[in-house]
Amino acid sequence: MKLFSAPIEQLINQLAKLPGIGRKSAARLAFFVLSMPEGGAEELAKAILDARRLVKLCGVCQNLTDKDVCDICGGERDKSTVCVVSEPRDVAAFEKTREYKGVYHVLHGVLSPMSGVGPDNLRIRELLERLNGGGVCEVIMATDPDTEGDATAMYIARLLRPLGVKVTRLAYGIPMGGHLEFADELTLLHALTGRREL
Amino acid sequence: MKLFSAPIEQLINQLAKLPGIGRKSAARLAFFVLSMPEGGAEELAKAILDARRLVKLCGVCQNLTDKDVCDICGGERDKSTVCVVSEPRDVAAFEKTREYKGVYHVLHGVLSPMSGVGPDNLRIRELLERLNGGGVCEVIMATDPDTEGDATAMYIARLLRPLGVKVTRLAYGIPMGGHLEFADELTLLHALTGRREL
Repeated sequence: MKLFSAPIEQLINQLAKLPGIGRKSAARLAFFVLSMPEGGAEELAKAILDARRLVKLCGVCQNLTDKDVCDICGGERDKSTVCVVSEPRDVAAFEKTREYKGVYHVLHGVLSPMSGVGPDNLRIRELLERLNGGGVCEVIMATDPDTEGDATAMYIARLLRPLGVKVTRLAYGIPMGGHLEFADELTLLHALTGRREL
Repeated sequence: MKLFSAPIEQLINQLAKLPGIGRKSAARLAFFVLSMPEGGAEELAKAILDARRLVKLCGVCQNLTDKDVCDICGGERDKSTVCVVSEPRDVAAFEKTREYKGVYHVLHGVLSPMSGVGPDNLRIRELLERLNGGGVCEVIMATDPDTEGDATAMYIARLLRPLGVKVTRLAYGIPMGGHLEFADELTLLHALTGRREL
């Protein structure tokens, strides 16, 4: 049974492909798009096409950008410290701290044998080439603290060992504002083993 | 502070205009759109533009359609019963029952003095013209059972009185599968006053 006319069905189908959007939400979004003031839907469509057309990977750090070299790599940053993250949105998370002055390297994923993601699917080769160019003192492995993120960090750390560059990992521990009683055992164990002198 | 390059920021801003999508969800959707397989984002943009270009209001029932007269109004339906709903998605809800054989009339909103929606902003004039054309025996007021939906139903019922057409309202009561103990007082009261002989 076709509940909506063909162009609406098609729009719902396309919107339902987005992550976290089911058919009901997609229908809601579709009706909203149809009811947008003149030009609103066209602006949305244009933003999608523009983003796809203009956005590419930074030649240095592989982050998403509309330039050959992104603003961070091209700016006044400490190029001797490279923070390795799995996704472009992780760069945004670090930038929000306003404290990190180094540069980044975006892997675009983590090693995941289950999903068929191997070292060749990540931007690891680009990282090695970059480090071979010299000038980097420290590489901070900032992949997520889960199985795949840890494995990816370990794998890359081992690859970098021959280069003699310092490789560090983000600290694990109790999140700020968190309560000890609600921390899981693994986090608490890491907070304990990673304790520092006051 | 600009966290993303301009085309990505623009895409996030546009996506964040959608209902129920905050900036964080918009960023997630934007990165998904950028990572879609070749042609995927273009299809989404095309679906948006097509829907805006092709979808118009049915000349009879005012529902969204890509034809001059929608499939329901143009089909083998009982034209003597008109179900008046506030939104196109309500038509889909009734069609899913597969039992309603009549036709519809979509108001595109409810009376809402607080939001500045008066009778002229709804498709009430079109309903009156349609009924003046004759052949309609019953009008079922199927706006939502809330303050604005009730007020809209009452307003239209009063307008239709001179036409001598039968005007009914959807039954209020306990939803199927619901539990008496969880029903609110108003629903229970309506279920009681609307009781029927077995």
